[in-house]
Amino acid sequence: MSTGIDLAVSTVIFALRPDADGRLVLSIPLVRRTRAPQEGHWALPGGSADARESLAETAARKLAETTGLSAAYLEQLYCFGDPERSPSGRVVSVVYWALVRGEEAELVTDENVAWFAADELPRLAFDHNLIVDYALWRLRTKLEYAAIAHAFLGPTFTLAELRQVHEIVLQRELDPANFRRQIEASRAVVPTGEHVTGGRHRPPRLYRYDASVELVDNGPLTSAGVR
Amino acid sequence: MSTGIDLAVSTVIFALRPDADGRLVLSIPLVRRTRAPQEGHWALPGGSADARESLAETAARKLAETTGLSAAYLEQLYCFGDPERSPSGRVVSVVYWALVRGEEAELVTDENVAWFAADELPRLAFDHNLIVDYALWRLRTKLEYAAIAHAFLGPTFTLAELRQVHEIVLQRELDPANFRRQIEASRAVVPTGEHVTGGRHRPPRLYRYDASVELVDNGPLTSAGVR
Repeated sequence: MSTGIDLAVSTVIFALRPDADGRLVLSIPLVRRTRAPQEGHWALPGGSADARESLAETAARKLAETTGLSAAYLEQLYCFGDPERSPSGRVVSVVYWALVRGEEAELVTDENVAWFAADELPRLAFDHNLIVDYALWRLRTKLEYAAIAHAFLGPTFTLAELRQVHEIVLQRELDPANFRRQIEASRAVVPTGEHVTGGRHRPPRLYRYDASVELVDNGPLTSAGVR
Repeated sequence: MSTGIDLAVSTVIFALRPDADGRLVLSIPLVRRTRAPQEGHWALPGGSADARESLAETAARKLAETTGLSAAYLEQLYCFGDPERSPSGRVVSVVYWALVRGEEAELVTDENVAWFAADELPRLAFDHNLIVDYALWRLRTKLEYAAIAHAFLGPTFTLAELRQVHEIVLQRELDPANFRRQIEASRAVVPTGEHVTGGRHRPPRLYRYDASVELVDNGPLTSAGVR
């Protein structure tokens, strides 16, 4: 059966990280290939599927092994199987996309792992530019109808921080009052009752994601947790 | 690499077919398994991936070989890879879903292929009940925001026929005037200038799908045709 096909699992990982000027930028970690084919090219983190793990478990493990990160959100993106996508034989790649929190995104130290701005990638190995483009499209589409932006932030956040996530990912400014109305109508985030600490006259309220509101389609087995 | 994993391609095929009373019902063709594992159980049409074909080409070929049908719409649904989903070894299944036209759906004659109402399936082989449930959810969700309902019909159709497709799939009645307004606002279908022939006083107008309006997200390579 299915002789001559290798099955791989790769992941497009998104985080918001500061650039040289301190501005937060939508960023992706890539891994430099240290062997043929396409040695020296940057590629998505991943590797061969493992017969003992689910595909999502493999994605989460490879993500952790390669980048030192864990995912706040992980979803299957697409299965890529064009016969010509690898020069060294047929490889079918099940691709996931993940969101990680900014503070965790500082942990990467391997010299063959580097962060790139999602909109300014070099020519990647294989069809990985195409894959990233599709993941960006999915992220931007999903951000507009599903409560996933909080996965870029810590457990609590201000509405201004949540709006900033939307503005960076969607690449446009949002009206603060409209944004507040939409978020409150969605009931996806709720006030914690706490405020930002510090000496400000009117410290902003802190919010948290309400896990009881399921607005995310994360595949057929969402309720069963990691697949 | 990826030793011990078989890669399969299967498809959930939807058509509207008349039941014994002549009422159109959302229906799915299934194939009776003629060998182990799970011999005698009904299963989704499919088979092993082929190293020389894209995944969508394999899905389209298996669909044609098994049912005698061709798809008016074909989209990747999900890649299922739970380690326990097959009792006879690890199988990862790339699953597609397809819409076929009612008149073509009469062609199936193989005694091991039969039509079932999508909402009244028996216990299927492997995790195929779960897969069909997810495909039904995707079909119903997508019908509400993408112009795919025409794929159940011929090249031209009346608005009443198009509304009937929505009512059957979504399992609820729709107000004719509201439906007409929504469809006309979407600009996904356009009048052909023709009318239904026959002796009626006010024969209904015929419409066709406007292929220049791309409302369907059919994966990362839509513009390149079949993947």
